[in-house]
Amino acid sequence: MSNLKFFFEPKTVAIIGASERLKFGYGTTKYLLESPFKTYPVSLTKNQIMGHKAYKSIKEIPEEIELAIILVKNDNVLQAVKECVEKGVKGIIIETAGFAETSIPKYVSLQEQIASLAKSSGVRIIGPNCVGITNFKNKFTTTELDVNKLVKGNISIIAQSGVLGNIFIDWATSQKIGFSKAITLGNKIDVDEIDMIEYLEEDPDTSVITIYLEGVKRGNTFKFVLKNMKKPLIILKNGRSELGAKAIKSHTASLAGNDRIFEALFRQFKGIFRVNNFYEMFEIAQVFATQPLPKGKNIAIITGSGSLGILACDLIEKEGLGLAKLESKSMEELRAISPNWVSVKNPVDLGPSQFSTLNPALNILFHDKKVDGVLFIFSVPELPLKQWSLSVTPFLRRMKHLSRETEKPIIICVFGSRWVFEYLLEKAVKFSIPLLNRIDHAIKAFRFMHEFYLHKKE
Amino acid sequence: MSNLKFFFEPKTVAIIGASERLKFGYGTTKYLLESPFKTYPVSLTKNQIMGHKAYKSIKEIPEEIELAIILVKNDNVLQAVKECVEKGVKGIIIETAGFAETSIPKYVSLQEQIASLAKSSGVRIIGPNCVGITNFKNKFTTTELDVNKLVKGNISIIAQSGVLGNIFIDWATSQKIGFSKAITLGNKIDVDEIDMIEYLEEDPDTSVITIYLEGVKRGNTFKFVLKNMKKPLIILKNGRSELGAKAIKSHTASLAGNDRIFEALFRQFKGIFRVNNFYEMFEIAQVFATQPLPKGKNIAIITGSGSLGILACDLIEKEGLGLAKLESKSMEELRAISPNWVSVKNPVDLGPSQFSTLNPALNILFHDKKVDGVLFIFSVPELPLKQWSLSVTPFLRRMKHLSRETEKPIIICVFGSRWVFEYLLEKAVKFSIPLLNRIDHAIKAFRFMHEFYLHKKE
Repeated sequence: MSNLKFFFEPKTVAIIGASERLKFGYGTTKYLLESPFKTYPVSLTKNQIMGHKAYKSIKEIPEEIELAIILVKNDNVLQAVKECVEKGVKGIIIETAGFAETSIPKYVSLQEQIASLAKSSGVRIIGPNCVGITNFKNKFTTTELDVNKLVKGNISIIAQSGVLGNIFIDWATSQKIGFSKAITLGNKIDVDEIDMIEYLEEDPDTSVITIYLEGVKRGNTFKFVLKNMKKPLIILKNGRSELGAKAIKSHTASLAGNDRIFEALFRQFKGIFRVNNFYEMFEIAQVFATQPLPKGKNIAIITGSGSLGILACDLIEKEGLGLAKLESKSMEELRAISPNWVSVKNPVDLGPSQFSTLNPALNILFHDKKVDGVLFIFSVPELPLKQWSLSVTPFLRRMKHLSRETEKPIIICVFGSRWVFEYLLEKAVKFSIPLLNRIDHAIKAFRFMHEFYLHKKE
Repeated sequence: MSNLKFFFEPKTVAIIGASERLKFGYGTTKYLLESPFKTYPVSLTKNQIMGHKAYKSIKEIPEEIELAIILVKNDNVLQAVKECVEKGVKGIIIETAGFAETSIPKYVSLQEQIASLAKSSGVRIIGPNCVGITNFKNKFTTTELDVNKLVKGNISIIAQSGVLGNIFIDWATSQKIGFSKAITLGNKIDVDEIDMIEYLEEDPDTSVITIYLEGVKRGNTFKFVLKNMKKPLIILKNGRSELGAKAIKSHTASLAGNDRIFEALFRQFKGIFRVNNFYEMFEIAQVFATQPLPKGKNIAIITGSGSLGILACDLIEKEGLGLAKLESKSMEELRAISPNWVSVKNPVDLGPSQFSTLNPALNILFHDKKVDGVLFIFSVPELPLKQWSLSVTPFLRRMKHLSRETEKPIIICVFGSRWVFEYLLEKAVKFSIPLLNRIDHAIKAFRFMHEFYLHKKE
């Protein structure tokens, strides 16, 4: 297993193709030059970049360079890589696109020459056709992200494609889902998902690994890695259809492979979870990252909306989980605290008065021996929420306390306006309670977490 | 077919159980008393409500009342209904919960007595256990909504459950999805979905009808209505599972019925579309409400993210649509405007330079005879979008123009931060271009729209 630390914590960085112009790479150049990371711009045309002396070649930099970021256009990449090798860098991130994915022989061959150079020299290369990496802990990034907005957490993401990793981190950041490392691999001429999974398995800041995959080159090693995973691995793999598989070829020059083989592989090993889209991937990852594993498969639902409780029932049955049959003691206690018209069966529908009885109801449900996890579906419309000037913090604190005390997971689903979502999100994140927009993701998260619990127990 | 206009455009309104206290119904009381709708508060305990003279009984109001809204607690509802009948109102909305859905014999019987009164007197009743109606055009509402935020449009929604309709209108409003009428029916002792579908079919402000259904009481009439629908009807029906069907019983006292029967019914008639959740329902409805119907099933995809293009391909195949095979003329034209490393096949991946070539590329795709609809997947991360100070308006204007000229639908999917979504949304709504968060909803919308096109052509 190779040490890839220099990609995430480089002592020195060179940006080859640093630019003052507002084009791809501008944001990265600006951020790194202004950051505490020791960064040198390399430019063929400029003597100065944003007030920093620019070098004509990486070889002219009067210091050892650990990591080079290459942004020059595709025709000039090979020369830049050669100079990096001569300089003795440890790692290179080639962000430039326009190689094997074009299917144009000249650029396919250019990629092969770069790959040979990596092999013969021992330099480690990420890319080409990617946006490199982001380390949320030390704020080192080769990607155009607003670093001040980033939310730190324990989820890491490996994505093949550049822009995709980027926009979904934007999304996750809006949802206050916290990350540890984000890695985009592009055409994978050297460093691939296997290297990165191995690195993240050992990374103390990562507790859940997520990966967006278009194809795998080292099939047997990949299988070996999947078999021996210690952390939960959540996989999104596209190219399920023939149309999709064809499109992959011209995207990152990967072979999608037969999707049935992948599907079988993912099912064969425990702790590997396939999802259908990025929203599902990150929301489920966040549950893994913040909640205890459910020891059984029986869920209690508590809500102010009977309809959404019913939807949750449909999904619980679909996912093969159980709707917790409450102990009769719990039912009696619920009846004692509820208005006459409230259903005290599971799903517990507290109706519009949900907040007057929520805390005692939570107490009853978390302490019920038949309950392995709690789903709270928040359903207060925006206007009453504003008019009541309701403070949700005491409820969230209670949930967190009960969850910790009973070692049972809690997930909140919220529906309604963006304002309501953000109002709740701001508070929920302080208690590390995952706030999801979709019940299907919540129920799937319970299932995956329970499967992971059984796997760990084996 | 009964005229139910007085529910949506009442000349005079009485609020029975009007309240100055911050509880359920406060928002409605406050809004209507301050609105131009001629509203009279009725209260047993107060002489004045928010500066308006309050009456002890609806019968004391010195004017004819068209619509009564009942908010008093369940034990007092029957008496209130009796007085409404004596007063000669045309319609009553009972928002109070705590009737048949409790399964408590006393309250089941109370509901039956109210139902008999409706039958014998001819008064029309919506509810109980609902939040009534909202007319987005004249801003009449019996629901606690921030009326100033409402977005007017051509979608109407019928929901059985109260709070649910409410929070999803909050959500849709955040997405700038425009509505015409929103109706919640609750336990449906009198007015049911059939009455409302019939009303909306004739409503000139409604072009798409959406419905959330827990069960149907008049099965044969429902079938007849479905068979003769002129407008697209999008249905969300829960209770697919046994668990869900049981939960429905204690929610609105409806019988979910065998889901297979419903599924068969929905498939039997053209123009009826079943969806899986509210997000899907409203996003697809918005496409129906704003876009021309696709005359064929071949979609062109244009994006800056190859990965998302691939995801869209998977979904196109799954939904039985086609990925448009571009005319060779189009391919040549695309090649001429693209950098060497860009794929000019469909999906058209413009890469990070997407905006320099977007307008000519749109031109080519819309005018290609093999293309029946266009999906644009926007994939610019937040930071570059801010730094480039990119104006998206010219692209949206172009899309709108081309869509109108060629009579082909356009859908935009956008991913990333909420800021990016709102940045785009604010502009897209001006051109009535639907902006979706999920490709699966977009592809499903194309399929439903094409099916509706074929149905209309028959």
